[in-house]
Amino acid sequence: MLLPGQHINQKGHLTIEGCDVVELASQYGTPLYVFNEAQARRNMRAFRDAVAHLYSNSAVAFAGKAFLCRAMCRIVAEEGLYLDVASSGELYTALSADFPPERLVFHGNNKSRDELEMAIGAGVGRIVIDNDLEIDLLEELTVDREAAVPVALRVSPGIDPDTHELISTGQVDTKFGFHIGSGAAMRAVERLKASKILDLRGAHCQIGSQLMDLSAHLPAIDQMLDFAKQVREDLGVEFDEINLGGGLGIRYTEEDQPPSMDDFAAQIVERFAGGIEARGLNAIALWQEPGRSIVGDAGTTLYRIGAHKEIPGIRTYVCVDGGMSDNIRPGLYSSVYSAVVANKASQPANHQVTISGKHCETDTLIKSIKLQKTEPGDILAVQCTGAYNYSMASNYNRMPRPAVVAVSDSQSRVIVARENYDDLLRQDRG
Amino acid sequence: MLLPGQHINQKGHLTIEGCDVVELASQYGTPLYVFNEAQARRNMRAFRDAVAHLYSNSAVAFAGKAFLCRAMCRIVAEEGLYLDVASSGELYTALSADFPPERLVFHGNNKSRDELEMAIGAGVGRIVIDNDLEIDLLEELTVDREAAVPVALRVSPGIDPDTHELISTGQVDTKFGFHIGSGAAMRAVERLKASKILDLRGAHCQIGSQLMDLSAHLPAIDQMLDFAKQVREDLGVEFDEINLGGGLGIRYTEEDQPPSMDDFAAQIVERFAGGIEARGLNAIALWQEPGRSIVGDAGTTLYRIGAHKEIPGIRTYVCVDGGMSDNIRPGLYSSVYSAVVANKASQPANHQVTISGKHCETDTLIKSIKLQKTEPGDILAVQCTGAYNYSMASNYNRMPRPAVVAVSDSQSRVIVARENYDDLLRQDRG
Repeated sequence: MLLPGQHINQKGHLTIEGCDVVELASQYGTPLYVFNEAQARRNMRAFRDAVAHLYSNSAVAFAGKAFLCRAMCRIVAEEGLYLDVASSGELYTALSADFPPERLVFHGNNKSRDELEMAIGAGVGRIVIDNDLEIDLLEELTVDREAAVPVALRVSPGIDPDTHELISTGQVDTKFGFHIGSGAAMRAVERLKASKILDLRGAHCQIGSQLMDLSAHLPAIDQMLDFAKQVREDLGVEFDEINLGGGLGIRYTEEDQPPSMDDFAAQIVERFAGGIEARGLNAIALWQEPGRSIVGDAGTTLYRIGAHKEIPGIRTYVCVDGGMSDNIRPGLYSSVYSAVVANKASQPANHQVTISGKHCETDTLIKSIKLQKTEPGDILAVQCTGAYNYSMASNYNRMPRPAVVAVSDSQSRVIVARENYDDLLRQDRG
Repeated sequence: MLLPGQHINQKGHLTIEGCDVVELASQYGTPLYVFNEAQARRNMRAFRDAVAHLYSNSAVAFAGKAFLCRAMCRIVAEEGLYLDVASSGELYTALSADFPPERLVFHGNNKSRDELEMAIGAGVGRIVIDNDLEIDLLEELTVDREAAVPVALRVSPGIDPDTHELISTGQVDTKFGFHIGSGAAMRAVERLKASKILDLRGAHCQIGSQLMDLSAHLPAIDQMLDFAKQVREDLGVEFDEINLGGGLGIRYTEEDQPPSMDDFAAQIVERFAGGIEARGLNAIALWQEPGRSIVGDAGTTLYRIGAHKEIPGIRTYVCVDGGMSDNIRPGLYSSVYSAVVANKASQPANHQVTISGKHCETDTLIKSIKLQKTEPGDILAVQCTGAYNYSMASNYNRMPRPAVVAVSDSQSRVIVARENYDDLLRQDRG
């Protein structure tokens, strides 16, 4: 499966935005995360425009947890998106890249006092309050303050999405947010209404991740608008904005058929705009926070192929020089990936193999895939690794983490440098 | 559940080797990996002695993948154990700590040419050859060499252990080693017999990890000895050593009932020594490679408790200031942990809760546990985190990785320093 911006050149090599990935592998080494900067920018524009075209009172924030480094913060800023950060480390990264703090949205289910203090001090655009302890802490931290602190309320609409349980977050049984059904969300609005400093702008929800249809989003919109209406009726508070989080799935393999961005936006906006009208609500801004759908298909990981092992009658293992340290998702979520032998991309893919990493356990990257005939030294390009690969990378087995190389317009540049052996020892003492 | 070396002091605080962990949390911050150095040393001696007492021709190597840093290498060296390394990064770490190279065992299912060159250059005690490509590479790399390179052969005995599939490695369908049943292992011995430089010392296998009985180990011993006998008969090659790998499980919770080290050693040795005699084999050294059973119960992670969320009729979430970035095992292997509220350790544990991390997904650390009544600011001690926690840690959500503090004899010292925000940016470019 080729991703947007990928082609096969005359040598039969895979190219990404005009860069021959076999050359990238030899120039930068393997494993290597190739980040298609042009595609990430296209995705940002496409997502923002798809919504804005139908509903101008809208905003899009990139969910930084999917992939964040200083260069990425700059790209997000250049594209005019907002940016979600979910920890003080993500916040620090954004600030260090001079990301405009007023365009930052600060998330998290267990923000510490230090994190909240840092967020207030930086002047982040929204602190999305998750729980009562955070209201306590924010009241304490702003007791001598005069300027308003803009906040939103993370609520749980009680929608059970069809996705992996580890990334399912909108159901009643969740650690996230104030539950609408139990009355906790309404009580939180009441607390915030009484605050002179905490300026409640609206509500936020997040249903789940890698969703293949809108069967969870649409009822969540209804719940959020019902809640907005109830808040107005009960407390006279008007929401300026409703943030629906992210969740749009992507194509990891040809079998995956998520809605297009345009279709997704159309369905969301229809339900949202129609719902506002039906409930007689004021104009409410529609916020969304895509992560995976912005960077997922902008990522390709290059590995060098090594050992082969044929187990007669069972399978053939093809081993690569990375694995669960650079991509934990097959192990963690049973995620399925597609791949192509980058230096033989024009050859027929008719050899059934299993792709294994080099870590000291099963470490299967791809359980079953048809590939071009492989031999040691070939370059394997695993597709759609832009989200939650680098961001979850570890040094398991003391493997240095790979570099991230951004490609665009036939040019490449390192945006995250490869770790070396001494980096592994940097924190060791004694 | 208290671990060896743990007590409750007069303040009602959990202590580890005489160190009050509430004081450790306040001195070093949270999350914090506390490494009970004394217990790790006790485990090393107990394991080695349990085997040596019954079978003097034996050796124990610590499986570094479970937990490795420079200080740990020094501890292993001081205790006189051998050390397994499974990548050039682990090898580099050991060498940087002046670990005697001749006591290193070099593993891996896909060693690169560079790694093999590094291992030969360092003079590691054993290179455990996994596949034919490695024999090719070793032959190439030693073509001008005169001194022997001691090697062993990783073989797959075809034993299916009862454990999580991700850490099950001894079955026929595995990426690891030469299969005995298919004849691949015998052909590899034949190749090595013909080599003037590669000095074959014996065979190695690894059945699986966290095994609660010996139902997989004992038949594996039979298979290994059958193989040794066949090798002698067919090729006239005598094995000096057989390495049974690791696999002994530990008590993560009170329900876990693994064999004691003494019982484990007794059963292994009986089968091994009896098997040698029954087959008329020469004296063969018995090697083992425990990892988890050495460091697992030497680890405790301290977290500070933050937000609470009661979902009426469903559950109460208690959130901590770490999560899947410092312990991926609940997500990856559905691992179950026990815990105690360290500053209230003498109070009754009768509050049923779910422990959640602070990462932006479900991130459940402990699904269901009875704890002391918790409130924000309490210190939660999660038990048995010594193996595969620090070694698999990531910076997901740009969380700095915790420090590791070793405790022994009422003293504490940092052996891995906590990362700070700037460490997160160290590799960022552009």
